[in-house]
Amino acid sequence: MKYLNTQSSDFQSELKALLAFETAQDPKVDQVVADICTDVQKRGDAAVIEYTNQFDGTDAQSMQDLMLSQADLKAAFERLPETTQTALQTAAARVESYHRHQKMESWSYTDEDGTLLGQQITPLDRVGIYVPGGKAAYPSSVIMNAMPAHVAGVPEIIMVVPTPKGERNDIVLAAAYVAGVTNVFTIGGAQAVAALAYGTETIPQVDKITGPGNAFVAAAKRRVFGVVGIDMVAGPSEILVIADGTTPAEWVAMDLFSQAEHDEIAQAILISTSQQYLDDVQTAMDKLIEEMPRRDIIEASLGNRGIMILAKDLKDACAVANYIAPEHLELSIADPQEWVTEIRHAGAIFMGPYTSESLGDYCAGPNHVLPTSRTARFSSPLGTYDFQKRSSLIQVSKEGAQKLGKTASILAHGERLTAHARAAELRLQDE
Amino acid sequence: MKYLNTQSSDFQSELKALLAFETAQDPKVDQVVADICTDVQKRGDAAVIEYTNQFDGTDAQSMQDLMLSQADLKAAFERLPETTQTALQTAAARVESYHRHQKMESWSYTDEDGTLLGQQITPLDRVGIYVPGGKAAYPSSVIMNAMPAHVAGVPEIIMVVPTPKGERNDIVLAAAYVAGVTNVFTIGGAQAVAALAYGTETIPQVDKITGPGNAFVAAAKRRVFGVVGIDMVAGPSEILVIADGTTPAEWVAMDLFSQAEHDEIAQAILISTSQQYLDDVQTAMDKLIEEMPRRDIIEASLGNRGIMILAKDLKDACAVANYIAPEHLELSIADPQEWVTEIRHAGAIFMGPYTSESLGDYCAGPNHVLPTSRTARFSSPLGTYDFQKRSSLIQVSKEGAQKLGKTASILAHGERLTAHARAAELRLQDE
Repeated sequence: MKYLNTQSSDFQSELKALLAFETAQDPKVDQVVADICTDVQKRGDAAVIEYTNQFDGTDAQSMQDLMLSQADLKAAFERLPETTQTALQTAAARVESYHRHQKMESWSYTDEDGTLLGQQITPLDRVGIYVPGGKAAYPSSVIMNAMPAHVAGVPEIIMVVPTPKGERNDIVLAAAYVAGVTNVFTIGGAQAVAALAYGTETIPQVDKITGPGNAFVAAAKRRVFGVVGIDMVAGPSEILVIADGTTPAEWVAMDLFSQAEHDEIAQAILISTSQQYLDDVQTAMDKLIEEMPRRDIIEASLGNRGIMILAKDLKDACAVANYIAPEHLELSIADPQEWVTEIRHAGAIFMGPYTSESLGDYCAGPNHVLPTSRTARFSSPLGTYDFQKRSSLIQVSKEGAQKLGKTASILAHGERLTAHARAAELRLQDE
Repeated sequence: MKYLNTQSSDFQSELKALLAFETAQDPKVDQVVADICTDVQKRGDAAVIEYTNQFDGTDAQSMQDLMLSQADLKAAFERLPETTQTALQTAAARVESYHRHQKMESWSYTDEDGTLLGQQITPLDRVGIYVPGGKAAYPSSVIMNAMPAHVAGVPEIIMVVPTPKGERNDIVLAAAYVAGVTNVFTIGGAQAVAALAYGTETIPQVDKITGPGNAFVAAAKRRVFGVVGIDMVAGPSEILVIADGTTPAEWVAMDLFSQAEHDEIAQAILISTSQQYLDDVQTAMDKLIEEMPRRDIIEASLGNRGIMILAKDLKDACAVANYIAPEHLELSIADPQEWVTEIRHAGAIFMGPYTSESLGDYCAGPNHVLPTSRTARFSSPLGTYDFQKRSSLIQVSKEGAQKLGKTASILAHGERLTAHARAAELRLQDE
């Protein structure tokens, strides 16, 4: 891991260089995706079947071969060991409970003129959840994407998950069962995103697509954005741990590993006010790395992008955190409640020694889909609110129209929009 | 205007064709914008000054010549007639009052194991408001973009507004004064968007950019998205009026005009359950068009994209509205409260005869920045919430870590993420 000191004169520029991550889009990928999207829009099911057979090594004859029913999902759930069934249900129940707190409700009020103002909240009609297949098959991702939609009251949740060579992942399908997914198509890639965005004879058009995917999926989501809503296109995952030395060094070492094991471009950063503690964590990592099956990935990730930072004090450490605006922030300190209000930018804040990021990743309750690459400066975790939307409500009373009409008329004339002014003036009684 | 009947067999396909609007991006515009953005990122102020002099016909020697102080804004306000001053203040106060209702507050709760879960709400640090200059200078747009940021608690609101040939618009600057803008740069185009997104020696980097602009501004916003947040890139403006015949036909005719006068691609649609009423509105339009200074634009807009629809009943009309998901929806009917809950998708809903869209555009309180082109299916009006963000809070208790740790461990092993599992397991006491 790189080593920085906040008191060095070049700290800011060194940190900036280490955080930098090129997210340049590949024009070749964009072109392939554009062609696939156009083709699916034009030829519908036929195109989806062809691309699926081509890319996933399947042999589907019709869309029937690429559909799973509720019974299929239930059967997958029932094939799991009871401990896994319970773990999925526990995680789903906790995620559901937390996300209920996020649900927006309609409101309105009436002003002194009898004019009603408010906001009507409605769920989206139908959403699509993209779930990667193959090696990186994450049931937790199904729960984190589907449950907020379910809590928001979305009546139809369509999941797509590719099954390379026909291989289905029971835990993923069981998670869909537990999280209340309506139906599943075993398709993936840009063709799945296009099918959800435009609709085909068999696949219903959705209003929003969420969920992670590879470069083709990300490019396809960017392309269909506007036709449908999308969640953020995520960058590499990051963790920042602020430690005052009171958490066992092994715990923090493993938390850094849990970030680093995702992939070679994941980023793990530790800030401490104690040089001794930084050394202790390094010693713990040297020992613990031996037992890690994903050792190569962890070493590559920490070697490429890992950072240890010595800070002057916790205030200094929080200032660095606000600059980094990390996806995951652990306040592994004695009094996290005192310091959490200093944090202005972070996706999720894990407080105290017992809150490992991994508890939040799976089952604490909050969402694990979080803003990456400093975007926590302006964006939020995926939540129930992402599957609801607001309509402004205005019902102007006769009396209100008299006062508002005069104001609107003056401003509309100021913008030389005569019809706007006249529409207001026609409602004035003394006209 | 085109004429449709919901009972015709080809109604859906005809409506779809009339709603279609090609938002294809122009690759030439994209290339120009890419070059400008790269140049501003590289050369900062110098590039901004050069492009501004080139595109706006100004003669700025340094950024000093392109900055306005609070005193300049105040002076602009004081030059206005008192009626205009009062109109701006009335509008700003009403918009502020409504947007206070939207402000999100932090919350948390503790579960039975003593684990704290919650959400911390923080405002963005700094935002940029783009305001078009020249002909389409809209003070109402300044209020609608700046006031929600102000209410959210954003400490710095930076406005950019081009001043072609040095011409400043007093009402626009006065609106900035009234809406609490921090400072103003008299720059525009892609160079202004790039300067806000990347920062220059003089112009501070912002976290989000909102506000309307031409094709170059829209392309620049799309380009910097991810580095900073942006609001939606808006399509042409639309209104859908549902009328049962109880509102004077002239009023509705003028409401349709007020949409159509924006530009040739704006869309005005009237649905009524009464053929007679559709005829009456047509007659009223034929008469009222004579007094419209923007007659040419109105006629082009209504000719190109205007639609009159005869519906079977109000339920039928609401179904059409839900398909269209209009930016502006007038429920110009006797009992709008009864029908508003049938509306699932609309940016803003204007209820009853007195609620002309123009009252909402300027001063009723709700925002006039609304989702266009059917995006109300998945998105919301600009609001206070767009200038706040959420951080999840998790503080797992020792007891909670025992239960959650077991669940997380099972699921992490299921995803073959050993470090995730170990981080949870290390917190188990009986280990």
